[in-house]
Amino acid sequence: MFEQVQAAKERLKGYANVTPIMASRTLNRLVGDKVYFKCENLQRIGAFKFRGAFNSISQLSKAEKARGVITYSSGNHAQAVALVGQMMNIQTTIVMPNNAPATKRAATQEYGATIVEYDPDKANREDIAKELEAMNGYTMIPPFDHKDVVAGQGTAALEMFEEIGNLDMLLVPCGGGGLLSGSAISAKGMSPNCRVIGIEPELADDATRSFQTKKLHSVKNPPTIADGTRTPSLGKITFPLVLEYVDDMKTVSEEAIIEAVKFLFYRMKLVVEPSGALGLAALLSRAVMPKGRIGIILSGGNIDSATMMTILNS
Amino acid sequence: MFEQVQAAKERLKGYANVTPIMASRTLNRLVGDKVYFKCENLQRIGAFKFRGAFNSISQLSKAEKARGVITYSSGNHAQAVALVGQMMNIQTTIVMPNNAPATKRAATQEYGATIVEYDPDKANREDIAKELEAMNGYTMIPPFDHKDVVAGQGTAALEMFEEIGNLDMLLVPCGGGGLLSGSAISAKGMSPNCRVIGIEPELADDATRSFQTKKLHSVKNPPTIADGTRTPSLGKITFPLVLEYVDDMKTVSEEAIIEAVKFLFYRMKLVVEPSGALGLAALLSRAVMPKGRIGIILSGGNIDSATMMTILNS
Repeated sequence: MFEQVQAAKERLKGYANVTPIMASRTLNRLVGDKVYFKCENLQRIGAFKFRGAFNSISQLSKAEKARGVITYSSGNHAQAVALVGQMMNIQTTIVMPNNAPATKRAATQEYGATIVEYDPDKANREDIAKELEAMNGYTMIPPFDHKDVVAGQGTAALEMFEEIGNLDMLLVPCGGGGLLSGSAISAKGMSPNCRVIGIEPELADDATRSFQTKKLHSVKNPPTIADGTRTPSLGKITFPLVLEYVDDMKTVSEEAIIEAVKFLFYRMKLVVEPSGALGLAALLSRAVMPKGRIGIILSGGNIDSATMMTILNS
Repeated sequence: MFEQVQAAKERLKGYANVTPIMASRTLNRLVGDKVYFKCENLQRIGAFKFRGAFNSISQLSKAEKARGVITYSSGNHAQAVALVGQMMNIQTTIVMPNNAPATKRAATQEYGATIVEYDPDKANREDIAKELEAMNGYTMIPPFDHKDVVAGQGTAALEMFEEIGNLDMLLVPCGGGGLLSGSAISAKGMSPNCRVIGIEPELADDATRSFQTKKLHSVKNPPTIADGTRTPSLGKITFPLVLEYVDDMKTVSEEAIIEAVKFLFYRMKLVVEPSGALGLAALLSRAVMPKGRIGIILSGGNIDSATMMTILNS
């Protein structure tokens, strides 16, 4: 799989941002170790999702591109697919719940995507997307459970190892496991002694339990502030990859996530969404004990004003 | 003066951050030109003020360092002086109004500064500072009206020209004129055809009127959200420098400042305080018509939760 991440990196050249790596003297003093942040909040569309969407869509055949692509997402993956479609002049259709935030809907529409609404109480988004896929000949670009998507997401960690060398520990947020498994594949390829630890909210600990029991668990609609991790479970492709490549999984409280977003805001002047701050939350709350050179992937920065105000007020 | 900025840069090496320069595809498309942001919100203490404080304090004699330094400020300069004092083991005294925000007071105290409170309705901060200076043999490090402070602030623009070459236009926030005159000196030294434009809030337009009439104007306690520009007027040293080196001055509305902070937050994922966003406010509101390669100095990112919530709500 590592070769596929390397190939993805070549494909992304000139299209994705090579995002900066930042550090904080205050945090290093607090933790007693060196911590490096890979700023995927500064990626195009504000999250790592651009990498996987671009890597998968750019590999479609001419005929597939002409027929268009489809996906289901109310968040960052929707915007990523829509933007890649716009860049490559490919028609995109996004299946979104009718209660999706207006701002995310608008951002996706701005990139020229067609939005198909559904009632999340009555229908399943995957079923709707599959029906449209079959009917119109669209190609499905799922949000995480696809090898080209995983390979694309792995390029963020790959860039990090290329820029700063070996790490002792890499902390990665885990929703459906695309970023986590991609990052772990890059770590094993670039810095084999690096311990890769996936971080989840306590309220959405399906992947942690799946990892520990080696049986797939799921949590439906967990009430966590980290909306990017509300995916019910790991996928058919990402679950085995997580078992094979990831060293450990840890969970953090909602309070720890809020503290981490605040630290990034006040101390590092970075806007990071709650899901994006999971790695730092694990370090600050000592869910993970720091050791040596530590990498953290800040996975995204798309946060709405209501969520930000809740965090600043708490 | 340019040689003094160059010398300041050498002094700052290894102590100040060489802050990153960022860009936004969305903004470039919107403006139709290339815009580069110098991210002084990512400087130590969260603002460019560290540069001037370090450059001036590090040049004191051994005897002066042993006696300690004093300044008056309720904002970023206070934190900058306190941090430099801590780094160099120099005693620092900061004269602050008794209504200064608790967070800024706490941050300054964390760096080990002694805080002297005064009642802004009854006393003048400069008088108090001068009295303490005379009584204790402290050296005064004023917030902007000092040649070593100006030279230090000029290093941000110097780094920008060194990294990205010539610019056609450089937009710089103006409070007391330290950052503005320092930046203009660097521009004339590095990129002589670059038009340097100082930006002020309409509500605090003293420097704009001073520039236009060549007579010093002042505005006391202007009710602008851009608290870093509430300085009543340019100084004895900065006014002549602004007249000599700066090409133009423009003002922006409170609404334009708020829009700029929001753009930086939502689109660029950067936390920038209102004063720091003045350059972008000028561009977005067309107070300055864009032309060619444009540099903007984001001067700082120290914003409290109440101000941020006001902005996100509006």
